[in-house]
Amino acid sequence: MGKIWVLHGPNLNLLGRREPDKYGTQTLDDINKELLHKAHTAGIPIQVEQTNFEGELIQWIHSMGPDDFLIINPGAWTHYSYAVRDAIIGVQVPAIEVHLSNIHAREEFRKTSVIAPVCRGQISGLGGKSYSLAMDYALEALTQK
Amino acid sequence: MGKIWVLHGPNLNLLGRREPDKYGTQTLDDINKELLHKAHTAGIPIQVEQTNFEGELIQWIHSMGPDDFLIINPGAWTHYSYAVRDAIIGVQVPAIEVHLSNIHAREEFRKTSVIAPVCRGQISGLGGKSYSLAMDYALEALTQK
Amino acid sequence: MGKIWVLHGPNLNLLGRREPDKYGTQTLDDINKELLHKAHTAGIPIQVEQTNFEGELIQWIHSMGPDDFLIINPGAWTHYSYAVRDAIIGVQVPAIEVHLSNIHAREEFRKTSVIAPVCRGQISGLGGKSYSLAMDYALEALTQK
Amino acid sequence: MGKIWVLHGPNLNLLGRREPDKYGTQTLDDINKELLHKAHTAGIPIQVEQTNFEGELIQWIHSMGPDDFLIINPGAWTHYSYAVRDAIIGVQVPAIEVHLSNIHAREEFRKTSVIAPVCRGQISGLGGKSYSLAMDYALEALTQK
Amino acid sequence: MGKIWVLHGPNLNLLGRREPDKYGTQTLDDINKELLHKAHTAGIPIQVEQTNFEGELIQWIHSMGPDDFLIINPGAWTHYSYAVRDAIIGVQVPAIEVHLSNIHAREEFRKTSVIAPVCRGQISGLGGKSYSLAMDYALEALTQK
Amino acid sequence: MGKIWVLHGPNLNLLGRREPDKYGTQTLDDINKELLHKAHTAGIPIQVEQTNFEGELIQWIHSMGPDDFLIINPGAWTHYSYAVRDAIIGVQVPAIEVHLSNIHAREEFRKTSVIAPVCRGQISGLGGKSYSLAMDYALEALTQK
Amino acid sequence: MGKIWVLHGPNLNLLGRREPDKYGTQTLDDINKELLHKAHTAGIPIQVEQTNFEGELIQWIHSMGPDDFLIINPGAWTHYSYAVRDAIIGVQVPAIEVHLSNIHAREEFRKTSVIAPVCRGQISGLGGKSYSLAMDYALEALTQK
Amino acid sequence: MGKIWVLHGPNLNLLGRREPDKYGTQTLDDINKELLHKAHTAGIPIQVEQTNFEGELIQWIHSMGPDDFLIINPGAWTHYSYAVRDAIIGVQVPAIEVHLSNIHAREEFRKTSVIAPVCRGQISGLGGKSYSLAMDYALEALTQK
Amino acid sequence: MGKIWVLHGPNLNLLGRREPDKYGTQTLDDINKELLHKAHTAGIPIQVEQTNFEGELIQWIHSMGPDDFLIINPGAWTHYSYAVRDAIIGVQVPAIEVHLSNIHAREEFRKTSVIAPVCRGQISGLGGKSYSLAMDYALEALTQK
Amino acid sequence: MGKIWVLHGPNLNLLGRREPDKYGTQTLDDINKELLHKAHTAGIPIQVEQTNFEGELIQWIHSMGPDDFLIINPGAWTHYSYAVRDAIIGVQVPAIEVHLSNIHAREEFRKTSVIAPVCRGQISGLGGKSYSLAMDYALEALTQK
Amino acid sequence: MGKIWVLHGPNLNLLGRREPDKYGTQTLDDINKELLHKAHTAGIPIQVEQTNFEGELIQWIHSMGPDDFLIINPGAWTHYSYAVRDAIIGVQVPAIEVHLSNIHAREEFRKTSVIAPVCRGQISGLGGKSYSLAMDYALEALTQK
Amino acid sequence: MGKIWVLHGPNLNLLGRREPDKYGTQTLDDINKELLHKAHTAGIPIQVEQTNFEGELIQWIHSMGPDDFLIINPGAWTHYSYAVRDAIIGVQVPAIEVHLSNIHAREEFRKTSVIAPVCRGQISGLGGKSYSLAMDYALEALTQK
Repeated sequence: MGKIWVLHGPNLNLLGRREPDKYGTQTLDDINKELLHKAHTAGIPIQVEQTNFEGELIQWIHSMGPDDFLIINPGAWTHYSYAVRDAIIGVQVPAIEVHLSNIHAREEFRKTSVIAPVCRGQISGLGGKSYSLAMDYALEALTQK
Repeated sequence: MGKIWVLHGPNLNLLGRREPDKYGTQTLDDINKELLHKAHTAGIPIQVEQTNFEGELIQWIHSMGPDDFLIINPGAWTHYSYAVRDAIIGVQVPAIEVHLSNIHAREEFRKTSVIAPVCRGQISGLGGKSYSLAMDYALEALTQK
Repeated sequence: MGKIWVLHGPNLNLLGRREPDKYGTQTLDDINKELLHKAHTAGIPIQVEQTNFEGELIQWIHSMGPDDFLIINPGAWTHYSYAVRDAIIGVQVPAIEVHLSNIHAREEFRKTSVIAPVCRGQISGLGGKSYSLAMDYALEALTQK
Repeated sequence: MGKIWVLHGPNLNLLGRREPDKYGTQTLDDINKELLHKAHTAGIPIQVEQTNFEGELIQWIHSMGPDDFLIINPGAWTHYSYAVRDAIIGVQVPAIEVHLSNIHAREEFRKTSVIAPVCRGQISGLGGKSYSLAMDYALEALTQK
Repeated sequence: MGKIWVLHGPNLNLLGRREPDKYGTQTLDDINKELLHKAHTAGIPIQVEQTNFEGELIQWIHSMGPDDFLIINPGAWTHYSYAVRDAIIGVQVPAIEVHLSNIHAREEFRKTSVIAPVCRGQISGLGGKSYSLAMDYALEALTQK
Repeated sequence: MGKIWVLHGPNLNLLGRREPDKYGTQTLDDINKELLHKAHTAGIPIQVEQTNFEGELIQWIHSMGPDDFLIINPGAWTHYSYAVRDAIIGVQVPAIEVHLSNIHAREEFRKTSVIAPVCRGQISGLGGKSYSLAMDYALEALTQK
Repeated sequence: MGKIWVLHGPNLNLLGRREPDKYGTQTLDDINKELLHKAHTAGIPIQVEQTNFEGELIQWIHSMGPDDFLIINPGAWTHYSYAVRDAIIGVQVPAIEVHLSNIHAREEFRKTSVIAPVCRGQISGLGGKSYSLAMDYALEALTQK
Repeated sequence: MGKIWVLHGPNLNLLGRREPDKYGTQTLDDINKELLHKAHTAGIPIQVEQTNFEGELIQWIHSMGPDDFLIINPGAWTHYSYAVRDAIIGVQVPAIEVHLSNIHAREEFRKTSVIAPVCRGQISGLGGKSYSLAMDYALEALTQK
Repeated sequence: MGKIWVLHGPNLNLLGRREPDKYGTQTLDDINKELLHKAHTAGIPIQVEQTNFEGELIQWIHSMGPDDFLIINPGAWTHYSYAVRDAIIGVQVPAIEVHLSNIHAREEFRKTSVIAPVCRGQISGLGGKSYSLAMDYALEALTQK
Repeated sequence: MGKIWVLHGPNLNLLGRREPDKYGTQTLDDINKELLHKAHTAGIPIQVEQTNFEGELIQWIHSMGPDDFLIINPGAWTHYSYAVRDAIIGVQVPAIEVHLSNIHAREEFRKTSVIAPVCRGQISGLGGKSYSLAMDYALEALTQK
Repeated sequence: MGKIWVLHGPNLNLLGRREPDKYGTQTLDDINKELLHKAHTAGIPIQVEQTNFEGELIQWIHSMGPDDFLIINPGAWTHYSYAVRDAIIGVQVPAIEVHLSNIHAREEFRKTSVIAPVCRGQISGLGGKSYSLAMDYALEALTQK
Repeated sequence: MGKIWVLHGPNLNLLGRREPDKYGTQTLDDINKELLHKAHTAGIPIQVEQTNFEGELIQWIHSMGPDDFLIINPGAWTHYSYAVRDAIIGVQVPAIEVHLSNIHAREEFRKTSVIAPVCRGQISGLGGKSYSLAMDYALEALTQK
């Protein structure tokens, strides 16, 4: 049976630890806990990682199996990392790109994703819920296989 | 208590009735039924509409109340209807833009949304599930108010 | 003798009814009343309309007579409705494009008008006074014919 | 047996009624009469419509049958109505885009058609003959089926 | 009480003295006289100047008081003088940008104003009336303070 | 009486001889025969040529008489040969640009024609019928003179 | 009889006084002397000026008579001074734009002249000879009137 | 001693033979005669050619000697023939690009020359005089060697 | 020994006199005093000027000696004054471009400097310290010569 | 058995004959000799041609057989000859685009090839070795068939 | 009390060790020594690092305290690393971007910094002095807190 | 004697292990073996590496000696890693950029290489042969030194 991978890109480790009055007190750990709980409840294996190294992200993607499912928040790499894009093409697993904030409502450069074109879909702007909705989709996709 | 509005834009009435081998046999009615069921189960009022007239879409948005929530698939208007954008700004209700297909993986012009910048977020590429995930979010948002 | 047409485009019906703390309490009716009063005082026929349907706006323009004068606020259509542009070219009446806000001081896309090039002039940024200055010009133009 | 649809977009109802010294005295009715005559002579059903509402044009296209043929002059919508484009994709009937004037010899924005890419071909610049040549093609296409 | 400044930019001194068959016989003096008359009638101080030197225009703007009102026709500087723009930002007085001709109906470069974004509004295309409408607005603004 | 010129640009000599399963078995000769037949039947002189040399095409255009009519398929020169454009301007004969395929539905660079702006019109996408419809138009234009 | 004006724009006063090894030892005075000599020999009045103030250049242009001829090297203003452009339009005298260096062979921004479109022609790249050829042309134009 | 080459590009053979009311009655022969006369008077060898074939133009350039001088009017090739550009680079002779009309005052695409950057200078807009001024320059350059 | 020139461009004379709550109470005089003090302490001659006239700035630059050093804040001219750029090239003195605010963090047009490419370096965003750091650099450069 | 075609585009005949200190003394003949030698040694037929006429290049391509292999250096046509591109598409033979210099390290326009997208690959920047490596590839491709 | 971080990006470790005739013999160690000396003299803690890994740079930034100050030379990441940009936004410490060379005077792509907009300022082009001036600023900022 | 470095960028480790029906069964090891064999046969030292970390690639480049030769396939970094570009500039070794696929025939963004301009040449589209041809060139270059 496939495994769900949740990969967080650069700077996401800062989440919730700084400026709590602005971004809220929800940390990346809080998000991860909810995702782990959902997967465990459904009896689906899950691996959650965060990195600030593009190369590390690429290698996690490389290690995915043919039945796995990828939930990825590429952070700022969304806008220029063709290497991450090629990694996803290379392993050909279904993927959903996730963003906490609404990338369409920020600086011009954030409106373009070089990674979304090789994913199945994209969810943005819903805070921590962007992840959990993606998880709901992934669980259903894996359990229906 | 607020109401959930699900507004489908142009050509979405064709869904599932044509080219079933390509787009599947799921019709817009099928999608709507699931959304209505979810809302009814949660005890939240819901209104679902489809139109091919920009003006009609705008007027439905105008009729929304301050506590309502909008799930909108603007279809092709996504890419040029600044009038729909202004309608959403005008009534200032929370909105999620929804797309059946992955707009980032199609023609160049489909990558730009003039409406998403005034929404809270966007879900694309997950077929009928794009709507139902948006509905999950909306229900939680409304019941937590 | 010619008639003055005041045509308001999409979303202008919202004016003053929402967010009074932000846009003031002046409604579209308030603006219209002042314009009607000016025209009646000058003894010039006047017709005032608002629509959210591009087609309806086009047909009002089509119904204008050769001696009429058009005051038009195309709202968001300003930026993409080549159809409204062609309607004005078609009937060849003098027209002034009017905007409540300063379109040059907002989002980039609002700086371009596809309709102004076929009008005699443009007045923007002066709130309800944008309309009434246009009306002063129109009245003088019609009464001097 | 298939039917021929001739759909005229915005402002084409003005044709011939205004500025006869510039555009000639040929009205849309004159064009339609010739097209109806050609179709009747060939014994092919025909439906001819004009509208200034994008939504109405879309719905006529939706009502086309699998063996029908579309002759469409989208007027100014040629340059921005992705909704009309999607309607034609949706029903998958053969279509020819027609223009009275040479769109390549006018303003820059008229050189781009967002609709022609989903048509079989385009005829422009030949006045009323643009339509009648398209009709000749359509009749031959339908009678050879 | 505030003063109204009317500042004419480069080449406007040519107005009406050359090519009277093309631009009419109205000179800049004629325009100024009407503006002076209006101000005097209203009992509002007024200063009218013309210059072909960007530096002189900037210094007049610098000398404005906090309650003054600026009517400015920057001529060709409209399209590149960020220095005039910064002068208006610097003194923070309300301003209206005025143009005799319709800048949206001429060469492409004339459609962009680098100065309008820091003004309250813009009036263009109405000949000498562009100025007098701006004056009407300014007088009302000053007398209502 | 005028003569009809049919000028085929580069690579059109390959038509039908290669990849018959893709482009069909219709050769350039087949197309030419139908055009010659139409002209002969109408009693109108006709000259048909193909070349892969821009200079040769230009010189044929130079040799046209004031009452002649040009049907031209510039092939790939459509997109960059300003020299062919200038030749048509120079002799000032009426011309129709013809394309076998729908140039609006292919690579981006094929959407722009530098030659169409100096022609009377353009017919594209209808295969060999693009030529014969142009011929019908030309014959009518010449016989009505 | 008309007069020839030779107007040098910003920084041209530096010519020949600095970096003689690079630009040669020919000063602006040397160039001017040759031009004065040519005009005097031909018996045509001539006025030669240099300025680093845009406003001063504009005012010299304003003072030209209807039969005068302008030889202008706008220096760096070539690339942005729409005000100088408007001055030349305003007085409608024939003008030749002159450049010492080949503006097409330098930085990208130097390839565009906003002034040449309102001149009769342009001579660039021939050093001091750019001026003297323009003078030859001007003398012939004036003496043939 | 070097030779002067005058090379005319495509369509220039039409000069003066067509539309004499528009372009004047001066033919290419008239221009050539004046140039030949000037060269003969100065005792400088000269060769004058016109072609509509890019390859022929390139080969004439290839045949130039190290002390020759090129006067070239590339016609429409000015805007796209990088091959002619490379030919001039290859033989490294001094060259002047010449244009009858003011290329800066026509269509947008005519403002860019891909050939001028490899010439010593450019003269445009002075009709036949563009050539003869270039000739004066060339004669002086050759006789001073 | 060389002299240090500090040249302030347009609108910088407003500094500190207006909106002290926003820009602070530091005036241009305050900045100048610190710079003069530094230079006097180091025994280096210094000249400090401000102007709103591009021509005046150019002429100060022209008057610089071969061993002088330029500290320049071109204000808004930073973004379009190729004439100032050419002046600095002409005199070939070392220069540092200085900005009070961070030009990379403001409007899009402020990110491009047409003058920095001909300077040795640029310091921006550090308020009055931008100038004093530039002064430290200049003093060291001059005293080490 | 297939034949290898080596086609050299415009100006390549100049190679080695001019500026030997810059481009070396290797002539096109030297390159050709090495290629002929390689082909003869391998027992593969070969045809080597150079032309400055686009039409001639196209016709050589047309004459290729289905098993042939093309080594092409399109020279400056690389950047604009869509006609050569279409010729290669038309005959559908494998091709390698070859350049002596590194086209990515020169002027901006040289970075784009309109021909490479229809070739199998591209080798650039290796001088005469660009050809001989392409030949090695071609020989292996042909002998392995 | 805050600490000063000096972070050097990719390839800066090469400084001074290669091509000493071109870049001088100053190594990164030389620069660092001067910075350490300045900080020690002022009694301010300092940490100096260099990395060729984007992830490592990001993590150093993450480890900064709320009172620290960042001096950063992002090297080539300046032009594309939105991830470094987000790291600086995330920790919200004051930062100065530093460059040895004048990035405005090199290739076009070097003129744009994606990181400078989130810094307080930028110093470029002054060699090792760019760093030491930034250090002077930082020391003053920290000691005045 | 110099050493040959073969550096493979991101995702190339996937080669041949996935989707063998699409990309063939040739693995990166297969390619490497052939390259090692060639180098060993020629008696030239060789080092072959692959990494998904930009920093690691940069450091290998830094460790190259002055007589070494670089064969590099930067993978997706080709299109954005200015840091790799600067590393190659820094060490100034000859380099060839290699691509398995034809980057000119894929997505638009793949057509631009930011690294090729600092290499000697580029070979693309020839599969594993792209590497071995580059190796042939490198071996010849090293053995001829």
